[in-house]
Amino acid sequence: MHATVLYGARDVRFEDQPEPTIKEPTDAIISLPVTCICGSDLWPYRGISAFPVATPMGHEYCGVVEEVGRGVTSLKRGQFVIGSFFASDNTCPHCHQGYQTSCQHATPVVGAQAPRLRVPLADGTLVATRDVPDAIHIPSMLALSDVMGTGWFAAEAANVRPGATVVVVGDGAVGLLGVLSAKQMGAERIVAMSRHEARQKLAREFGATDIVTERGDEGVERIKQLTKGVGADSVLECVGTQESMMQAIKSTRPGGYVGYVGVPHGVTLDGQQLFFSHVHLHGGPAPVRRYLPDLIGLVFNGTINPGKVFDLVLPLNQVAEGYRAMDERRAIKTLLRP
Amino acid sequence: MHATVLYGARDVRFEDQPEPTIKEPTDAIISLPVTCICGSDLWPYRGISAFPVATPMGHEYCGVVEEVGRGVTSLKRGQFVIGSFFASDNTCPHCHQGYQTSCQHATPVVGAQAPRLRVPLADGTLVATRDVPDAIHIPSMLALSDVMGTGWFAAEAANVRPGATVVVVGDGAVGLLGVLSAKQMGAERIVAMSRHEARQKLAREFGATDIVTERGDEGVERIKQLTKGVGADSVLECVGTQESMMQAIKSTRPGGYVGYVGVPHGVTLDGQQLFFSHVHLHGGPAPVRRYLPDLIGLVFNGTINPGKVFDLVLPLNQVAEGYRAMDERRAIKTLLRP
Repeated sequence: MHATVLYGARDVRFEDQPEPTIKEPTDAIISLPVTCICGSDLWPYRGISAFPVATPMGHEYCGVVEEVGRGVTSLKRGQFVIGSFFASDNTCPHCHQGYQTSCQHATPVVGAQAPRLRVPLADGTLVATRDVPDAIHIPSMLALSDVMGTGWFAAEAANVRPGATVVVVGDGAVGLLGVLSAKQMGAERIVAMSRHEARQKLAREFGATDIVTERGDEGVERIKQLTKGVGADSVLECVGTQESMMQAIKSTRPGGYVGYVGVPHGVTLDGQQLFFSHVHLHGGPAPVRRYLPDLIGLVFNGTINPGKVFDLVLPLNQVAEGYRAMDERRAIKTLLRP
Repeated sequence: MHATVLYGARDVRFEDQPEPTIKEPTDAIISLPVTCICGSDLWPYRGISAFPVATPMGHEYCGVVEEVGRGVTSLKRGQFVIGSFFASDNTCPHCHQGYQTSCQHATPVVGAQAPRLRVPLADGTLVATRDVPDAIHIPSMLALSDVMGTGWFAAEAANVRPGATVVVVGDGAVGLLGVLSAKQMGAERIVAMSRHEARQKLAREFGATDIVTERGDEGVERIKQLTKGVGADSVLECVGTQESMMQAIKSTRPGGYVGYVGVPHGVTLDGQQLFFSHVHLHGGPAPVRRYLPDLIGLVFNGTINPGKVFDLVLPLNQVAEGYRAMDERRAIKTLLRP
């Protein structure tokens, strides 16, 4: 088959790769009707985070079970499944606490920008839907694999409560779905920090009540103005830079909550500054597996439509253009059709 | 009157100072039957944190109202009162959220190692007891002013729940009262990290079930052994150094909680390490005011006896010896009698 491989900064190739096969008895092979590019793929694409030469790309997936290892007991050929970007056994103490991305046997899923994918720890990782979804629901199911679950975790980590004032830092797919999550959790006021028109529009559609275009300390100042000097109850940090993290912390009222899901790159926090900010801080790789059963239900019954974040659809063999479009912010998120 | 003034590292003097007077209509003057030295006083005493020359020392207090400004409405002469080390109006939005140490009008209380003290924002800051406490309860009432409330906040910030496994980093008065707080909140297992015999003994008396003497990564390893490789549900950080903070974070299970109340000195957190630790982090200057009414009740009815942390009693004029004893860890906490 042909699949996506990153060779160096901005060097994405779609090239012949071996078909995935069952390596461990707990593996499953699934075929992917659609796949996509993640904002986090841009870190290595831009050369900001290091990676081995010739890295198979893609970690978001949903699709049809083609084959399972002899140790897989809960899945069978033909089922439609969704999984998280981290495989997990879903039985260890950390999984039981709902932190499957810290599973004692966690292992990343790689190579999903391809027609077929090997998923380790299939019983723990994959959630089967009751029926095979209609084509119209499939982009939303794909979004559950990472960005929707990550936005949801950001909102939960930020303790969003009915009536709350929420700020979302970052207008990528995760930030936008953080807006949607905050809305679902009953937030009264949702401020999206964005200076990009198409993203502002989608943020409003997802439930944002205010848009702030300023960044850094000016952005903090605007949030303070909007909250009578108090700060927000809950702030979702969906970027991962020093500026965005400090913008999030400083926008939060004392006793408020910062949920951070942008993978930190070059971020350091000063202990004393954090201490006197009086904020709660929680985040990390989103335990998407925890949310899958509920979120699948919300997609099926039409309550949420996270697939709207896909504003560019390309055939998989044009994956390199998909990366370029996201890198240049011409696209929020690229859907790829194998 | 004579009062305590810090002139430089290890240069504590008990010298003539002006009597406190009402400066603002919201002030009260109280007379102090007892006063004490805080572990945090050792930061400037040791020259680790900077301070202006001739700094009046002491921020923990309880006592009898002698005089109130004309703007004070809820207190009167003769009442016994306890307040926090930070004065607060108790009416601003941050106070309403229970973060009185981040009050929009917060102001530190200084000069309590003296026979008399001026307390700003008296209506908001001071809580009057129903009756004047018996002499036997007075050290515990004094402990509520800072160390008991701070240990309580550490346990709350660390989300201590019935049945939880709790680790306390730091065996000063705050850490020991963190043990007591965790016990009150129903923790099943409480591990005190201490290598000091007298403190270990008091920790056990307050509810510690295990003592770990190792520190740093060795200490973390011991905690992992004691928790079958999982880590603790809740960790109270009651020191404020880089080592103690990392010890706390690494001892916590993914999804667990770190409550940190040691004022950070030279602490920096790496964003990515924190991200992948998956811990919740909350702390800051303890909003002691929030807890005073409840904790006063627990002292009066004999449920808690935090005054046990005072293991050295001196006349106030020997305050310099009180500092030396704590600096050299000969005393946990020094009570001073004016």
